[in-house]
Order: sequence, then structure tokens, then C-alpha cells
Amino acid sequence: MATTLIKGGTVVSATGRGEADVLIDGETIVAVLAPGSELLGTDLTASVDTVVDATGKYVIPGGIDAHTHMQLPFGGTSASDTFETGTRAAAWGGTTTIVDFAVQKYGERVEDGLAHWHELAAGNCAIDYGFHQIIGGVDEDSLAAMPRLIDEGVSSFKLFMAYPGVFYSDDAQILKAMQISAETGLLTMMHAENGPAIDVLAEQLVAKGNTSPYFHGKARAWQMEEEATHRAIMLSNLTGAPLYVVHVSAKQAVEQLAWARDNGQNVFGETCPQYLYLSLEEQLGATSEEWGDFEGAKWVCSTPLRSRAEGHQDHMWQALRTNDLQMVSTDHCPFCMKDQKELGLADFRAIPNGIGSVEHRMNLMYQGVVTGELSLERFVELTSTTPARMFGMYGKKGVIQPGADADIVVYDPNGHTSIGYEKTHHMNMDHSAWEGYEIDGHVDTVIARGKIIVDDDQYLGSKGDGKYLKRGLSQYLL
Amino acid sequence: MATTLIKGGTVVSATGRGEADVLIDGETIVAVLAPGSELLGTDLTASVDTVVDATGKYVIPGGIDAHTHMQLPFGGTSASDTFETGTRAAAWGGTTTIVDFAVQKYGERVEDGLAHWHELAAGNCAIDYGFHQIIGGVDEDSLAAMPRLIDEGVSSFKLFMAYPGVFYSDDAQILKAMQISAETGLLTMMHAENGPAIDVLAEQLVAKGNTSPYFHGKARAWQMEEEATHRAIMLSNLTGAPLYVVHVSAKQAVEQLAWARDNGQNVFGETCPQYLYLSLEEQLGATSEEWGDFEGAKWVCSTPLRSRAEGHQDHMWQALRTNDLQMVSTDHCPFCMKDQKELGLADFRAIPNGIGSVEHRMNLMYQGVVTGELSLERFVELTSTTPARMFGMYGKKGVIQPGADADIVVYDPNGHTSIGYEKTHHMNMDHSAWEGYEIDGHVDTVIARGKIIVDDDQYLGSKGDGKYLKRGLSQYLL
Amino acid sequence: MATTLIKGGTVVSATGRGEADVLIDGETIVAVLAPGSELLGTDLTASVDTVVDATGKYVIPGGIDAHTHMQLPFGGTSASDTFETGTRAAAWGGTTTIVDFAVQKYGERVEDGLAHWHELAAGNCAIDYGFHQIIGGVDEDSLAAMPRLIDEGVSSFKLFMAYPGVFYSDDAQILKAMQISAETGLLTMMHAENGPAIDVLAEQLVAKGNTSPYFHGKARAWQMEEEATHRAIMLSNLTGAPLYVVHVSAKQAVEQLAWARDNGQNVFGETCPQYLYLSLEEQLGATSEEWGDFEGAKWVCSTPLRSRAEGHQDHMWQALRTNDLQMVSTDHCPFCMKDQKELGLADFRAIPNGIGSVEHRMNLMYQGVVTGELSLERFVELTSTTPARMFGMYGKKGVIQPGADADIVVYDPNGHTSIGYEKTHHMNMDHSAWEGYEIDGHVDTVIARGKIIVDDDQYLGSKGDGKYLKRGLSQYLL
Amino acid sequence: MATTLIKGGTVVSATGRGEADVLIDGETIVAVLAPGSELLGTDLTASVDTVVDATGKYVIPGGIDAHTHMQLPFGGTSASDTFETGTRAAAWGGTTTIVDFAVQKYGERVEDGLAHWHELAAGNCAIDYGFHQIIGGVDEDSLAAMPRLIDEGVSSFKLFMAYPGVFYSDDAQILKAMQISAETGLLTMMHAENGPAIDVLAEQLVAKGNTSPYFHGKARAWQMEEEATHRAIMLSNLTGAPLYVVHVSAKQAVEQLAWARDNGQNVFGETCPQYLYLSLEEQLGATSEEWGDFEGAKWVCSTPLRSRAEGHQDHMWQALRTNDLQMVSTDHCPFCMKDQKELGLADFRAIPNGIGSVEHRMNLMYQGVVTGELSLERFVELTSTTPARMFGMYGKKGVIQPGADADIVVYDPNGHTSIGYEKTHHMNMDHSAWEGYEIDGHVDTVIARGKIIVDDDQYLGSKGDGKYLKRGLSQYLL
Repeated sequence: MATTLIKGGTVVSATGRGEADVLIDGETIVAVLAPGSELLGTDLTASVDTVVDATGKYVIPGGIDAHTHMQLPFGGTSASDTFETGTRAAAWGGTTTIVDFAVQKYGERVEDGLAHWHELAAGNCAIDYGFHQIIGGVDEDSLAAMPRLIDEGVSSFKLFMAYPGVFYSDDAQILKAMQISAETGLLTMMHAENGPAIDVLAEQLVAKGNTSPYFHGKARAWQMEEEATHRAIMLSNLTGAPLYVVHVSAKQAVEQLAWARDNGQNVFGETCPQYLYLSLEEQLGATSEEWGDFEGAKWVCSTPLRSRAEGHQDHMWQALRTNDLQMVSTDHCPFCMKDQKELGLADFRAIPNGIGSVEHRMNLMYQGVVTGELSLERFVELTSTTPARMFGMYGKKGVIQPGADADIVVYDPNGHTSIGYEKTHHMNMDHSAWEGYEIDGHVDTVIARGKIIVDDDQYLGSKGDGKYLKRGLSQYLL
Repeated sequence: MATTLIKGGTVVSATGRGEADVLIDGETIVAVLAPGSELLGTDLTASVDTVVDATGKYVIPGGIDAHTHMQLPFGGTSASDTFETGTRAAAWGGTTTIVDFAVQKYGERVEDGLAHWHELAAGNCAIDYGFHQIIGGVDEDSLAAMPRLIDEGVSSFKLFMAYPGVFYSDDAQILKAMQISAETGLLTMMHAENGPAIDVLAEQLVAKGNTSPYFHGKARAWQMEEEATHRAIMLSNLTGAPLYVVHVSAKQAVEQLAWARDNGQNVFGETCPQYLYLSLEEQLGATSEEWGDFEGAKWVCSTPLRSRAEGHQDHMWQALRTNDLQMVSTDHCPFCMKDQKELGLADFRAIPNGIGSVEHRMNLMYQGVVTGELSLERFVELTSTTPARMFGMYGKKGVIQPGADADIVVYDPNGHTSIGYEKTHHMNMDHSAWEGYEIDGHVDTVIARGKIIVDDDQYLGSKGDGKYLKRGLSQYLL
Repeated sequence: MATTLIKGGTVVSATGRGEADVLIDGETIVAVLAPGSELLGTDLTASVDTVVDATGKYVIPGGIDAHTHMQLPFGGTSASDTFETGTRAAAWGGTTTIVDFAVQKYGERVEDGLAHWHELAAGNCAIDYGFHQIIGGVDEDSLAAMPRLIDEGVSSFKLFMAYPGVFYSDDAQILKAMQISAETGLLTMMHAENGPAIDVLAEQLVAKGNTSPYFHGKARAWQMEEEATHRAIMLSNLTGAPLYVVHVSAKQAVEQLAWARDNGQNVFGETCPQYLYLSLEEQLGATSEEWGDFEGAKWVCSTPLRSRAEGHQDHMWQALRTNDLQMVSTDHCPFCMKDQKELGLADFRAIPNGIGSVEHRMNLMYQGVVTGELSLERFVELTSTTPARMFGMYGKKGVIQPGADADIVVYDPNGHTSIGYEKTHHMNMDHSAWEGYEIDGHVDTVIARGKIIVDDDQYLGSKGDGKYLKRGLSQYLL
Repeated sequence: MATTLIKGGTVVSATGRGEADVLIDGETIVAVLAPGSELLGTDLTASVDTVVDATGKYVIPGGIDAHTHMQLPFGGTSASDTFETGTRAAAWGGTTTIVDFAVQKYGERVEDGLAHWHELAAGNCAIDYGFHQIIGGVDEDSLAAMPRLIDEGVSSFKLFMAYPGVFYSDDAQILKAMQISAETGLLTMMHAENGPAIDVLAEQLVAKGNTSPYFHGKARAWQMEEEATHRAIMLSNLTGAPLYVVHVSAKQAVEQLAWARDNGQNVFGETCPQYLYLSLEEQLGATSEEWGDFEGAKWVCSTPLRSRAEGHQDHMWQALRTNDLQMVSTDHCPFCMKDQKELGLADFRAIPNGIGSVEHRMNLMYQGVVTGELSLERFVELTSTTPARMFGMYGKKGVIQPGADADIVVYDPNGHTSIGYEKTHHMNMDHSAWEGYEIDGHVDTVIARGKIIVDDDQYLGSKGDGKYLKRGLSQYLL
């Protein structure tokens, strides 16, 4: 097996940093060494196959994006990134593991849903991938199937309090699924928005002719995210199920999470780059149209972008510092404007929900280090170490230590990355939600299970480099 | 320099664990290696001077006790452990670093107080030691001296809201000192009890003949800890000073800390083993005396032991899990019963305040892992990694990584430790506050800066092994 | 018209008390006078038809029980009190007004439901009565009918978050109804329990053979009351609807109400005597059966009795003092054991839910004055003045002032009332939930719209004395 | 004795309103009658000496201003209103009772302080007056004197957490005084600002040349009001003393009060018109000076005006609605600009603290009814009924009922009042803090103990109409 030595860099972990070299043998890290790579008189540099010079750069565990939706069927179309295009874009951006969502719909067998996702992904991925399981139809069969997911390496499942008629579970269903969660340790993930109420608001807006993308955000009021978050917390309190709330965007929802955690509940939350940087006001845009034009469709996602005037974005950054939120994922769910987002030209409800960010998450979060929102260590914790612990991958992933998979990014704090529309990203999208963002840093080298797949702005990997990752139970319960 | 290899153990960090070997060269860790210690074909085992077999054991960063009071003059006597006896006892218990408190009193120069503590410690310590600076008299001179402490490696100072006439600072003094803290990054440590109010209650109790040790706890009501904690938080809010509250024992005080942290303030708190395990009820004891007998003097400390019926102890464990408290220190301040505690036979106010625990902290906290209160990783975080980060030592201390000081404990989860009075502890005390505690684990080997100082229940170190540790600014601000 | 003078008593209002005489002319209070009843030289005593001597007694506004269910069809049977028996029992206990719930079920017209209740009550009542409207089926028709209720003197409607398939409204329905509430001022009343989740728990308990009445309380967990209360609050926050939560029994639900009120929301709550005095532990009873015997069916009501060990009862009393709860009603919904409660001998889910208390509320609450839980004034406020204001009756009801209906109780604080089973109450029930309660006070005289209907333990009224009361909009919004 | 009949008005109480006539005999209300004043055939109109026509107007209990400082020595000068001028101005504005503060200073006997205030007031007042007692020097003597105040009709005392060296009490003193409060029922009133900390900030501002009135508000940071409020609450919690916090201006202080009240503590708070209407921004003024000119001295009071951008004013109104604050007083403490406020031309610390509002409180609060901030009933409750209950005067004061003192205001909601500087107010001040305020209402007639003292913009009273009012213990504890 080939050996690689990463020399001269600053290795950063969730708790600190230090000058050290990293030795890789095959797919695995085998040693972290004092700088100089001389060990008991032996100069390792000469012995290895490849030396990566990381002088002046950060050596960090590869990014883990625990919330992606490649090829997801939604609203009569499908997310525009395949596992092939999406994972390759992720790799370009310094992410070496994704956890995607296999889907079981009402009336389907859980095993079939999972098997279908395996088919979609197998042999196509640039980086390692795992699965959460969406349970879109909680019934006797799916409840019985859930514990068996653990053997399949799927240690978490997701329910939806939104999207009635599609993925929605009512409280009776949630209760039953959470009982399984409490018994088995399967982590309950929750899309926490009160869908039935939101759908009424949306219908009323459209009935009044308020059909532009902007009204997507108006319909999905923060009160209905806060409410659903509280409800999920109390069902978790009742059952003892560990709870992980996805894509938190309302500061009042964070306050509920903080309250539950202070009370000692095993409750967690993630936010996404869009809730840190983007806002409802910007979605409204600089347009002559009263309520924004259709450009706003780029930023239609659920939970929605929130009002900056109400202070949500600042509170999200704060919550990442205070650990009231524990992780940053992307909820990567890309759709092109043409033929996809445009389905909702006449009615915002028909716009496929989703933003594509899998390529940009590491850079966007690093920019938070540059602007002083986060420490460098917290950046690593939020993007890699905690995702690994939360979803049962730590040891193999999320840390640079002997025995871990050699998933490593060499990040240059003196580099620069421009995010923009044309030909500058690798996601299968005809636009970018992030056009114009400038990052004071650069992903120089990406190593995935020992193989250099990105280097010097060249893609060196191959389709199928990524393997399915069986995950264990969450390692991060309070 | 001598080389040592720790083989076959499970290396535990604040975020996870893994099978790995640790190579030490001189005083420093130089590599963490995949098990087997074979690197690119070379078997290191044969090359090193010493091999420590850690098979089946935990390899953890040496304990850091960030709150000790060796030789502290208090109440007309002095803490019974010298730096020599106290640090040796610490080493026996798996602690390889202490941070003690140098004292400046009203009218003294800060420099002189610090110099005196250097005299007391230099050449006498078994393990490395740093200093916080008590500012017992905030005035123009001491305020001017404070920023210069940073150059001395003293990056934190402590004020007292208790003990009027001794260490007490009023709110005007606290405000001024906190302004220095905000400007310089010096961490403000606070003894948060409303001393003037407590002294009234104590005087009233004694005037009614309520003189037994039990009434020490009655006088120091939780309301007065909660109040002072809130006051310190608001002065911190006003000035921007980072705040660290020592020896938190009241659940209501924790609630104040949680509130401040959720609001984004840089506020931290430690608790001590006595507030996790011991209670006012036990201090009352099984005695025919109505209000407890003088045996209760063993447990006279400030803040005091709290009522178990009020739920403080359970809440402290919870707060350690939820990170509303970040660290566990001992507030080690030992006094013998004879001639010392007995000063207060007629009046609890004359009992020197303090409990000796420096030797037992690691074992007592590990027992929390055994009983399921804490994860093994959280145990390491609370006892070593966070103390190192909080007080500007991380990198050298608090972590097992190349470049760090080789401060390592091999801990046997299959061993056993009985804590008791006679000849079974090494602190200079004629009793133990912890008599009868049984620990399902054992400190097998203690390595301090590369030297094995405890092994197989033998003390192998020497007076003076420990060096003064210049600390940097806190690395753990939110 | 006949004139009556109440002489020599202490007139008590919500804000204070004073020695005063009260002059009634026909159905109306026409003057409140300084004691002595001599006005500008005229001795009124000689001029009136009837003099009631209230010396040494309290003269208070007649009780208003704003939550009763006479003749309610429920669980295959009907509440055992008719409007005739129930209102007569109310009168015996010092209550001179009830507000009962007219019912609209799914598929029925609101007007028809209300008309049916008018038929049941008209000509049968001993005291005045008004109606709230239960909307058991929120749809286009019922939403359109709601604003018209105001003209009918029905200014409040009730929704159920419990009882799926019976009265249950989902969140979409609640949202729509609350929008009407916000637009019109109709007060939204809410049964706040998460019915779908509770039904799962109940089904699981029964499936395990846990069928005794005790398990009714176990199934209806406090978490599901707290959750529904929060949800109702947030839907109120979103829509602007004023919200009144009925029969609050969980302290955590009170905390949610207090939070909403501190935030400035128009949110209110009532509790009932059973949640102040009775508990789940007592329902379990002193029996050889492991989980209580069927005697516990007496106390099966929803929300259920709560655990005293968890502190709910004490917190309800406190909340009445702090005004976090504003009123005490009975939720009077009586069922006999024989043929009614016994429907659930084999399955607690078949026990009709309800306790009969309409006769005892005033006495039970006055006992809270005796034991120091409430002030005398707060007793009047909770039982009469606030109900009148909350439900748009003040001026006519709830106060002793000129122009008000002469609904007055002469209450003797030196009297005594024993509450028990046989022949000592007047409700149409074959048992009492309150057997053995002793009250240090006595309802001496009850005057309803100027007519003495109870005096000296004699019933002097007639069927049909009570008239329908058209209510205005709530007068008590924040 | 003369008789007066107030006819045709709407009598308003704290709980509601109704058409009624009020009959006064001598100094006392003897009857409240149905409109028409015909009682059992007798037309009272013809029998009385005087008839006041209140048609179309509100008949409300005379205002009670429970916080005034006539003639108070402060900062080397004295408040510019004597008891004669100040109480006459109060009468002009519809206030018929004040409670002023007698002062005991350090080293003085409480009895002497009280006696001196009796000398100042006796025979000079236009309206009734009572006294609170400032305890400016808590020591053995003053503690012993405090219980005796109850016999003198002084049922409340005030401590200061501000003004070190003047009125300041430290926490030990507060604790001792609160213990007396808890034992006797004397109400503890508190000026809750952390004076020692504020004085440091003020000194630092002046040292930097920031001497204008604006900096008074900057020095008295909201954190130091919040902190002192919390501290007072916890000392109250510890001792059981009822607590009343004066002149609350920071929303965070209100949050502390709300928290304590929700926890069941007997804790109360007042605010003042200036904290509802005026702000720090306006104090800064429209001036070319960078930090405001000396005009800002008009609004120098403590607690200070708060920033409108921070939302304090809106929160005060909300707190009056939610009953988190219970009363509105003025803290009337007038100083002229010339020779008085001007003492601080060079240093804001030398500006006497205080605003004159005793004449305007009723009008300013009524304007809150006009703008929809308060209900008419809440206006009466805040300005008269609650002050009477809180300070042990209810029955005699604060309510229109037989037996009460005939202190009544006829208020015209169709009238108008312009508040301005020159000749339009009656306080002894050379300026007004309220210049330019327009009120949509007018005080038409003021009756004090049966005598019409203001009518049709004429002053009809005499010096000495007002008598000393012995107050009982607070009637408004939770």
C-alpha cells in the first residue's frame, strides 16, 4: 500500500492545534508525529511514497456533510445532483463524507427504500457516504423495520412535521417512532415545522395573489418552526428518544433547544450556511416588483430564509458559539432554475424546495473564522468532529489520529476562493445561491481514504472512490 | 534523552478514543502511532528505553487541578499541605499539573505576593504548577500591576465577593478589575457568595447558640450564592470581562450561568467533587446531637455543602453533562482536625474552610463514568482538556499529541481504589473527607514530563520534578 | 317591584371590602349604602319589602361558573345533571350564573347545535345561563357561522386538541378558527392536550392489561398538556387570537401560560377545584389492588388529576395568587357510577370523563381563604368578577354595584358545610368526588336577580327562574 | 355637614364601569346609586346642598401619588416644591393623596426624621398625605425604631442601593432591615441601582471630560439596575420580606420582577411617567453639541431615562398591562434650572436628580388610555386603587364606595389639556420636563374629603385642607 506524509502543517482538532506531521499508510492514518518527521533517528520523509507540503497551512479532518439529498424526488422533479456529480462537488469543497437520506414513502417497505438508495449511490460516489432513513410512512411495518436498520449501518431516521400528504407524520406516528428510538438508540431526526398550519397560510397567500417566491418565507412563519421544535422536544421528553432537529433557522427555535438542553434532555440541532448568511430581505431583492421577482426562487428552501431585521442570523452564529447548536450541514438539495424552480413561476408552492451548498460549506464556515464568529477549533468541531460523533462515525472519521481513515484536507488560510455562477462551481446547477461570496481561504489538497483526490485545483479522483459507510449509534448523547 | 513507549492502550481524548501507542522522547510526546508500534517496517518497541504496557487500560492526559491552595494562610492557621506534600499527593492521584493561588492582600504589592508564592513552590513540587493571582486589595497599585501578570505567565486573577475584611472586594473594586480583565484578556475568577449578608446570618446563628459545623452551611444560604453569581455576571456583561465562577454548588447559581451563556456571554463555571457527592444532610451526620457534632467540621468549606433534598448534587452532575459547568477542580485547601479545624469548636466561624481532595479528584470523577453520570471522554475533558484550554496551557498540557508535555496517566478500569483515613492517602491531613469511598478504577502509572513518577503503587518521583508553568491567555472563550 | 335590603354585612369585591348595605329594587341593585341604611334622614329599612340581616357575614357577588356541561352527550351516555338539576345544585352552592357549552359536531350546523342547547335549557334553569359554543367540526360552514355567534350573545368558542374523531381539531383547523377569533374578538377557548399522542399511550396501556381508572392519568401525561398549551399559545401568537386555556392541571402548562403573558400575549387560563385538591395518588387509593380499584373512576376527568409528588397542586394555588391563572371553574360534567362510569369497568378509555362540582366550587374555594392560600378578595375575583369580565358579563354580573343584576350571596364565615355522599348534595349523582371535605363557611342566602332562592338551607326558587344571558365580548384582554 | 351629589357620570373602578350617582355626606361617600338619584321614591337631587353634573364624564377615585419628595434636601439644595406648592399642584392634576418620604440619615434618630417631616407638612397641604420612612442609616437604633413606625401610620420604609455616603445601605444592612420587614409586615421599598459601580463609571466619564447631562444616563447603565433588582429580590427571597421596587426603568429589571412574581414572591414594582414617555435619545436633544447641551439637565433623574432604541419604554407599557409592574407614581422631585440644576453645569454628577410630574401624572396616564396602551379600568387601578391597597389605605382611599373618603375626580374625556412651560403648571419650577405634551382629556372637578377644591379651572381649596393619613399594612401582598 502507498504511504503519504503530510509535512509541516498545523494539525487542527476540535480542542486545539499543534505543529505535526501526519503519516498515512494505505487508507489509514498510522501516526501523528512531531514536526520534522524524524522518529528515533529515522527520517520518514525519505521512506514514503508521497510527501504533501503543508507548510503554513491547516491540516484538518475532512468535512462531513450530514445532510444531503442527492437525486431526491421532490415536487414532481428530482434534485439535480446525482451521487456522482454531488459527491464530486463535495470533494472539490473539502468534504470527504456525506450522509444522505434514503427515502421510505407511505406504503413502501423500509428495506426497499434503503435498497433503492444503495443502487443509486453504489459505484458512483467520489467520497464515502452513509445513509439516514426517511420514514415517510410510520406504520406497523415500518416500525418493525426500524430496529433492523442498525445492522445495516443506518443509525438515524428522519421524520417530517411538515409536508402533509408527502413525508408528514402526525403526533401519534412520531410518538411511536420515538419509542423505537428510545429503545434502540436510533437517533430521531426531525424536520420541525408545523406543516398543516403552514399549508393553510400558503393557500391563503396564493388565494390573494401573493404567489412570488418571497411569500414562501412569509407562509413558513417562525412561530410554526418554534412550535414544532417545542412539540418534538416534549415528545422526546415523554419517550426518552434522543432528538436531532435539522436545518434550524429561527432564533426562537434555538431558544427552545437551549431550554431543553439546559434541562438535561438529549436534544441537538444543526443549522446550515444559508441561515447564517442569507435572509428574507435579500430574497426580496432589489427589484421593481413589489414582492420580489422570481430570482428569489434560488433561495426557496424549508425551513425558509428568515428576516435579518428580526435577528435570526446573528443568533445562529451565537448559538454555534454557545453550543446551543452543535453542527453545520448543508441540506444540499439542488434544483436548476430552468425546468425545475420554474415549475413555481405561477405559485411559490410549486417551487422545489432546496439550495445547493455541498461544495461551499467548508469555505463558508471557514469565513466565519476569518470574521471572528468562530474559533478555528470550533470550525473543525462543527464541520467534522461533531458530525462524526453525532452520527456514529468517530474514530474512522472526524479526527486525525492513528487508526482513522485518512480523510484530510490541507487548507490554506492565505489562499482565496471566489464563489460564483459560471463555471466556478461543480454542482449540477445552472445558478448559484452563493454568487459573489468571497472566501479568505482555499481548499488546497483533499485526501480521501489515503488517496489525493483534489490537489492544486485539479480533480484527481475517480467515480467510485467513495464507499458505503456503516455507521454505529450516536456517540454524542449528553 | 530517554525514550518511552506506552503500548497497547486506549488513548482517550475529549472527543473520542482509539487504540494507539504513544512515543515519548525526553519530556515530550513525539508521536501517536497505530497499535503495534511498527512504523514503515521499524519496530519501535525494541528501540525505546522503556516500554509501558497499557493493554486493557486507558491512556489519558494527566489531570489538571486548576484550583488548589497549598500552604494558604487562613483563619489564623495555614493549609496543612505544603507544595511538597500536596503536589506529591496530587501525583499519586493522577494529577500532573496544579494551578495554585498566589495571594495579594490589602496593602501589599501584587508582585510581592506572587514572588512569595514562587518562593514557597520553587524546588518543592512533584508536578508542574502555575499560579492564578488573588487580588485581595483592589486599588490603584494593584490595578496597575495586573496587566503585568500576563508576562509572568499568570493569566487569571481571583476576586472574592465573600470574606469582608480579608479578601473581599466591593462592587466598585470588582468593576475596576473587570475593566482590566476586558482590556487585557486576563480571566476574572470569582468566589461568588454575598459575604456581607452571610456574615450577618452567621453572627445571628452564633448569637442564638447555633455554633456547630452544620450551621456553617445554614448561614451560607444558596440565595447568597445565586445572588453573587448573578451580580458577577452583570458586572461581566457591563464591562465585557470574561468570567469564571469557582466552586459552584447551588443549582440556582448554575441556572444563572446557563442563562448568561445562552445569552452569549463569556461566562464559565467549575464545580468540585464535594458538591457532586457530599451534602449538608450527611454533614449533619448520624449523631445524637441535635445539630450534628463536630465531626461535621471535616466538611466545612465555602461555598458549603448543599442540601440533597433540594437537588443540588443531581443538578451539578447534569450541568457537567450539559456543559453549563465546564470543569471540575478541587479547591484543595486541607486542614487537620487537631489544632486546625478544632479552632472552631465553640464557633463554626472559626473553623478553617476547606476540604482536601487533590489526590482523589481523578478517581472520584472516574467513578462518575462508572455510574453513568459522565462519558469517558467528558471525564477527560472536565479534568484535563478544558482546564488546559481555560487557563492557557493547551498544547503543552491537556492533550496527548506530538509536541505536548508527556503528562500521561495509565488508568486501569479493572483496578480498584479504596479511599480512607489511615495510611491510604498521601495528603498531610489527619482525616479524610472521603473516608469509605470505593472507586472502580485505579491510577496505575503516572508520567510527568516524560518521567514515570508513580507506578505500581510506588512513588518514583523526586521533590522538584515539577517546574513553574507560564500560562498564556485563556484559549476557551466562547 | 319588590325591594330588598341586605343589612349589616361586609361587602367584598375583587379589590377590597367594606361595611355597607345593599338595596335591591326588583331584579337590580339600585344602591350601595353606608351601614345604617339611613340616607339623608330616611330609614330605608322601614321602606323595603324584605330585609336580609347579614351581620357578621360576607356579602359577595353570586358565583359564576364559566365551565359546565349539563346533559352533555359523551362516550355513549350523557352527563347526569339536566339543566334543571344542575343549575339548582349550583344555586345551593352560591353560584348564580353558569356558562355551559353548546355543541356543534362535525357535519352539523353551528346554528342547530346552539338552538338545541337553547331547547335543553330554556325554562328549566334555576339561575341565569349563557353559552359558549363548542366547534367540533371546523369547516367552511362553521367558520362562516362563527362571527354570527356574537349577535346571539355567544362571544367565545371552544376547540379541542384532544379526542380525535369526536371534538378534535387539527392545527390547520385551529389556525383558521383563530383567525376568525382575531378578527372578531370571539375568545378562543382551548382544551389543550395532545389527543393523538395520548390515545397511543392509552391504547398501549390497555394492550398490556393496564385497564384500571388509575391508568387514565398515566396515559394523559403532563408533557402532552404542556405541549398542547405551548402549541395553542404559538398559534395565538401567529394569528393574534385571544386564548383561554380550560382546566389547566400541569404546573408545566402554567409555566407556558406565564411565559406567554409576560411576553404580552392575551393568554389566560382557568383551573378547577379538582386540580387544587385532588391527586393521582389519591385516585390510586388505599386498596389491595396493585393499580387501584374501580373507585378511582369517580375522579376520571380530562385533563386528569396530577401527581402530588410532582408538585402540581401547590403550583396551581400559587398560580392563582400570582395571576398566572385567572379563574376557577368546575368543568362540571357529572356521571353516575352505575350504568355510566361503569361502562369502563374493563377499559378505562370507556369511562365517561368528568367530575361533578358545580355545587361545591364556592365552598371549596372559600376554604382556600381559610387555609391562607387566597385572600378573600382574590376568592371573589376568581369565582365571580374575573369570570364576568373574561366572558363579557361584567356590569350585569360579577360585581355589587348599582345597575348590576341582584345576584348576591350572603356567606357566613362562622358557618360550616360538610360535603358528602348521601343526601347532602343536590347534583344528580350517585356519589361524590368530594366526600369527606369539610368547609369552614356556609352559603346562607342566595339571591338571583333579586329573588331569594336559597335561604337558611331551604330552596325557595322555581324551575325557570334563570334566563338566557346574552354575553358581550370579553372585557378582560390585556 | 354638607351633602354633595355627583350625577350622571360613569363611575369607573379597577374592575369595570357603570352609570351611577355618588352621594357624599360631609367628608365621606355614603351611597352609590343607580342613575336618576331617585331612591324608593325620593329624589335626592333636591335634598343635597350641591349637585355636580358629571354627564358624559368619568367619575374616578382621586389619584394617589405614592412617591413624592417635597422639600427634599439633595445635593446641596432642596426640592423646589414645598408641601404647600407641591400638594396644590397635585390637586390641580387630579391627585388627592400623596405619600411622601420622611428621611432618617445616618446618625439621626428615625423618630426625629419623621417628626421633622410632620413639621414640614402639617397645616400646609392641599390634600391628604402620608409618609414612607427613608432609612438612610441602618443601625441598631434605627432597626429598633422601625417596628414602632407602624403605630405612627408609616407602614413602609425605603432603602437605597445607590448613593454611597448619602442614603446607601450595604447588603448586610439591607438584610437586617428586611428581617424586620418580614417579621412586622412593614413593606420594604428599594431604590435598586448598584451605586458603588455607577459611581465608578460616572467618575471615569467625568475624568474623560464627558460632563454633560447626557452622561448621567450613560453612567447609570441598565445592567446596574437589573443587577440591584435581582439582588433585592434574592435578599427578599432569603428573608421573606415583601419588596416594592421604586421607579423601574429598565426592561431587564422588569424581567427580574416578572421572574420573581412567577415564582410566587411578594415582589412589586412601580414605574413613572418619564420612563413611559421620555428617553435618553430625547435627552441628547437636537443640538449642535456632540453630547447634548445643558437643556438635558431637565431630565436628569435616577433611575435615568433609558434608550428608546433598546425598547425600554414599550416594555414599560407592556409591563403595566401584564401586571409585571403594578403602579405608576411620579418620584416627584422638582428642581429649578436656575441655581439648582445649574449646580451641575460643569459636572453632571452635581445636577440635582429629579423631575417634577406630580401635577401631570393623571393626565399622562389617561393619555395611555387614549392611545390604547391601557384600559380605562387599568388606568384607575394603576393610579389609585393599587396604590391604596399597596400602601394600606384602601377603603378610605382608592375606591368609590360607601364609607370611603370622598376623594373623587370628575374627568372629561372630551376635554383637552396642554402641558407647557409658562404659567400653565402650578409646580414651583421654572421649566417643565413635559413641555409640549397634549392630553385628550381634562380634570374638571376635584373633590377631596368632600370638599370641591378644583372646579372649572379654578382653585377653591385652602392651605391645610389636607390631613395626615395614618396608613395600615399593605393590603396587596400576593
